[in-house]
Amino acid sequence: MSDTPIEFFFDFNSPYGYIAAHKIGDVATQHGRTVDWKPFLLGAVFKVTGAQPLPLVPMKGDYARHDFARSARFHGVTYNPPESFPFSPTAASRAVYWAKRDGRAGEMTLALYSAALGEGQDIASPEAVVAVSGAAGFDTDAVAAGIQDPAIKEELKKVTDNAIAREIFGSPFMIVDGEAFWGADRLDMVDRWLETGGW
Amino acid sequence: MSDTPIEFFFDFNSPYGYIAAHKIGDVATQHGRTVDWKPFLLGAVFKVTGAQPLPLVPMKGDYARHDFARSARFHGVTYNPPESFPFSPTAASRAVYWAKRDGRAGEMTLALYSAALGEGQDIASPEAVVAVSGAAGFDTDAVAAGIQDPAIKEELKKVTDNAIAREIFGSPFMIVDGEAFWGADRLDMVDRWLETGGW
Repeated sequence: MSDTPIEFFFDFNSPYGYIAAHKIGDVATQHGRTVDWKPFLLGAVFKVTGAQPLPLVPMKGDYARHDFARSARFHGVTYNPPESFPFSPTAASRAVYWAKRDGRAGEMTLALYSAALGEGQDIASPEAVVAVSGAAGFDTDAVAAGIQDPAIKEELKKVTDNAIAREIFGSPFMIVDGEAFWGADRLDMVDRWLETGGW
Repeated sequence: MSDTPIEFFFDFNSPYGYIAAHKIGDVATQHGRTVDWKPFLLGAVFKVTGAQPLPLVPMKGDYARHDFARSARFHGVTYNPPESFPFSPTAASRAVYWAKRDGRAGEMTLALYSAALGEGQDIASPEAVVAVSGAAGFDTDAVAAGIQDPAIKEELKKVTDNAIAREIFGSPFMIVDGEAFWGADRLDMVDRWLETGGW
């Protein structure tokens, strides 16, 4: 049985990423796996693909806004996005890579995602990210320094470049033993793939 | 308990529509509902939204081709698309509206969809649609005449215009008591909505 972590690519603006972030940990644990949390900058990917954020796409936008909330309720996840949306996910993403050094990337991801998409908080600024991190039990001085650390900044850039190179074009995007799954609505397939190794 | 039919909008080029077409009948029956089969011309919708067929979208195209086959296997549906793909769905769509007059729209849908996306047959021409219909037990002369019937042609046009007016932008698109669900991956939500009336 493989113990390769599940790569979990997401953008902090993505409601479906937010929903999946609440589920992927349990799915992984049930199959003896861990999650490799990989926030990335979907805006940089969209520059390559020419895609637009879902809410801005004609017709699809209205449906998407309705489906975000309905999907969250379906999965039992509180959904309440901020007024300023989409927002810059850079500071929040860097905080996750900082937390990853201590194996707390999942904890940081859920704290920031829940503040933003569950409680409608603005987490665009480094100051806001530090405040949310502090409330979640992280050392605020260390988080503040981590967000400005050149190595952390480089890590986010590298993951985003790597995502583009691997044609990871959406959020959430989950890689299980090399197999790619896009969307919170693929969690059932991820579960089956982990169980059976494919079909 | 409502007995309003489930509106099932689909384009004959849509692999996810094909998968859902195999499932929606059972979902409806389990809840005492019927299916109102509504083939439409997604190409006309894309002209309004500016969207492209999934296989032509950068990055998404490669994933989509892989996911079509994987999703079909996941749902136990044989998938083998024709070489000439996408193809004109007009004749096939008209045949469904002709069959609907005798309450056989579902039967016609599955016969044509399975020939095209299950057996790789070219069903673009009226002649091909007539041949598939004949093999499925329909009166070939009547189908041939039906495809050319101005009232049938008008019906397909009206449904497509109505879909655009209602912002039905993809395939499959399912309407349950006014609630819209897009995608084969929303069948579980359709099932729950029918069970509970919403959440």
